Amino acid sequence: AVNEGRLWQSLMEMAKIGATEKGGVCRLALTDLDRDGRDLFAKWCREAGCTLSVDKMGNIFARRPGKNNALPPVMTGSHLDSQPTGGKFDGVYGVLAGLEVVRTLNDFGIETDAPVEVAVWTNEEGSRFAPAMVASGVFAGVFDLDYGLSRADLDGKTMGEELQRIGYAGDLPVGGRPVGAYFEAHIEQGPILEAETKTIGVVTHAQGQRWYEVTLTGQEAHAGPTPMEIRHDALVGAAKMVVDVNRIGLAHKPFGRATVGLLNVTPNSRNTIPGKVFFTIDFRNPNEDALTAMDAEMRASVAKIAAEHGLTVDLVQIWHSPVVTFHEKCVGAVRNATKRLGFSHMEIVSGAGHDACYINRVAPTGMIFIPCEDGISHNEVENATASDCAAGCNVLLHAMVEAASA
Amino acid sequence: AVNEGRLWQSLMEMAKIGATEKGGVCRLALTDLDRDGRDLFAKWCREAGCTLSVDKMGNIFARRPGKNNALPPVMTGSHLDSQPTGGKFDGVYGVLAGLEVVRTLNDFGIETDAPVEVAVWTNEEGSRFAPAMVASGVFAGVFDLDYGLSRADLDGKTMGEELQRIGYAGDLPVGGRPVGAYFEAHIEQGPILEAETKTIGVVTHAQGQRWYEVTLTGQEAHAGPTPMEIRHDALVGAAKMVVDVNRIGLAHKPFGRATVGLLNVTPNSRNTIPGKVFFTIDFRNPNEDALTAMDAEMRASVAKIAAEHGLTVDLVQIWHSPVVTFHEKCVGAVRNATKRLGFSHMEIVSGAGHDACYINRVAPTGMIFIPCEDGISHNEVENATASDCAAGCNVLLHAMVEAASA
Ligand SMILES: NC(=O)NCCC(=O)O
Ligand SMILES: NC(=O)NCCC(=O)O
Repeated sequence: AVNEGRLWQSLMEMAKIGATEKGGVCRLALTDLDRDGRDLFAKWCREAGCTLSVDKMGNIFARRPGKNNALPPVMTGSHLDSQPTGGKFDGVYGVLAGLEVVRTLNDFGIETDAPVEVAVWTNEEGSRFAPAMVASGVFAGVFDLDYGLSRADLDGKTMGEELQRIGYAGDLPVGGRPVGAYFEAHIEQGPILEAETKTIGVVTHAQGQRWYEVTLTGQEAHAGPTPMEIRHDALVGAAKMVVDVNRIGLAHKPFGRATVGLLNVTPNSRNTIPGKVFFTIDFRNPNEDALTAMDAEMRASVAKIAAEHGLTVDLVQIWHSPVVTFHEKCVGAVRNATKRLGFSHMEIVSGAGHDACYINRVAPTGMIFIPCEDGISHNEVENATASDCAAGCNVLLHAMVEAASA
Repeated sequence: AVNEGRLWQSLMEMAKIGATEKGGVCRLALTDLDRDGRDLFAKWCREAGCTLSVDKMGNIFARRPGKNNALPPVMTGSHLDSQPTGGKFDGVYGVLAGLEVVRTLNDFGIETDAPVEVAVWTNEEGSRFAPAMVASGVFAGVFDLDYGLSRADLDGKTMGEELQRIGYAGDLPVGGRPVGAYFEAHIEQGPILEAETKTIGVVTHAQGQRWYEVTLTGQEAHAGPTPMEIRHDALVGAAKMVVDVNRIGLAHKPFGRATVGLLNVTPNSRNTIPGKVFFTIDFRNPNEDALTAMDAEMRASVAKIAAEHGLTVDLVQIWHSPVVTFHEKCVGAVRNATKRLGFSHMEIVSGAGHDACYINRVAPTGMIFIPCEDGISHNEVENATASDCAAGCNVLLHAMVEAASA
């Protein structure tokens, strides 16, 4: 069994890097803090006897050799980047659970047949650089390297530049090598496990997502003398669209999700009618057809509202991550380990995207969820218990050892 | 008559300071560019033989002596600060029209009985620091000095600090001295004069305004796993309020104006449900009762929407500038000068606030409007013709000379 205290201590230690006043973490991808987090992880891995390598997307792989190093590795991992006001567990838990598996194998002197690797995937959050899961996407051949390195934040800085700057632009080609199996442990980030009082979620699917960027252009004018009827107020148009995006999410009960998370107004001055608004849409659904229907409804609504207010629209779908069905063998390995260890469990569909969603395309993949307090994530109050963290990590250990046995 | 070419050239020269790519101006209050604009004005005034003084709010007064310097000055002026994406005329025109009056008096060797002063009022726009017309407000005793100096921008920098920084924190007490009469020339910033093909607007009133700041707090959560029904999405709430603010403006036809010009989302991340939104409301009406009704309707709407989404609301009215009736004598002087000079004209109510609105409380005050292209202001494309600029300046000259005669 894994060492619950050690895992917890590592989580709390990592949470100091980018710690926020409200007890959360702000460690945006490829910032100095992200580098500090990576450095700490690398140090711990070296201390655990792993060899480290970094690929051109900045993905880090910490390798613990097996008996037969010609065998493809059994891999686990997640990400160290966070939301601007993120929590201590999202991503970090999967990375440090992987490290705890290695430490536990060391403690018990267990030699696996296949080597074991712990991966840190770059920019999983998609918050500083859109879309999410970019670097695991390049690893899986979903995106090409140029696309990955050229993703830019809203200040125009690219992932390629920022990887160079923080010293994590590695030499290794991205992907293109066999992976025996991939497992990822993660907090659920939703309310289901807690509501059902289950310790482990055996993740069978992940819902599909579509991300959009919308730019509305109207006409700046003075808030005082400009009659209401002749305005082309980009913010009033955007506001109607935000309301309608929410309505579309509600209409696709119970599984549809629709969110405008980012919205910027130009010139953003109290007494000027807004001339331009940029905003994003995040649509999700575990059913691809329903997701397509949401897309069509939104496009119709946006066009109608824009016409009503005389706004020009630039609407681009910047990302589509289709519904994922995880690999039968790995889902089975997670289920078996959970049963063997006697944890209460249920099958669950992931509401969030994860690096596992992309790795599933190039390697048999499975995921392990543990509950988080009040189902809250992407929030500084995000929380999980040490015992649930250890439970998920034990399931990970058992699933990995099974997969790494010839 | 004033020198049309000289006035135009000065306008174009000043417009180089903070010139934007789209032909506008960005010269926010108390920035380095604002200082550069002030310096240029001061240089021109000295060259025109004026003496300069600066008060504790950074208001600049350029004085041309009269025959009897014991008489209170006849004053004109406006502001040099702009919107973030402002035009070349808003404010600047009134300041440089004042300078052109001085230059013309010099050209013709005219000595007025009372001294003449051209004022530059600090932070009229209310864009970087809210509210608008702060420094003319302090001059008129509407605000006290501490209030004025402590106004802060969204980064927390105060007007007092920024005045020190750019070297325009003067020694002179603010106001408290007699002003014989105050006239302000300004572009209309609305569509009426152009639609009615009139050269001069004789401004009789200014509409009342109320400014608000609203902070909505909901709960950040993950955009994927969080069901629609349990969300406390501060942006969806804010969007409904923006739509409703606009509806209230439309409902108070034809004079009501309602604008949300500034809106900031926290954490502003694509896949996080917004936990906090800060936005402003700008309400205007030439009828105080109607303005009060708009206030009540908005408060009811905000409370209802907040309750619907489980959001906490912090709603503060940060400014009320009541309906202004300009001084009979000065309105008459503007009307008479316009008639004497033979310009087409009409009476008009100002849709915008102006420093004149506050100075009207401590001195007989009148305003002169000239048309602007397509009625557009607070926009980089803001435009006016050289001949209209000269027409308004001639009216100003005549009204001031009349007022400055014993
Ligand atoms: N796990 C997680 O928070 N991923 C970020 C990408 C997403 O929004 O689903
Ligand atoms: N004239 C002008 O644009 N003033 C700014 C204050 C207001 O919004 O009315």
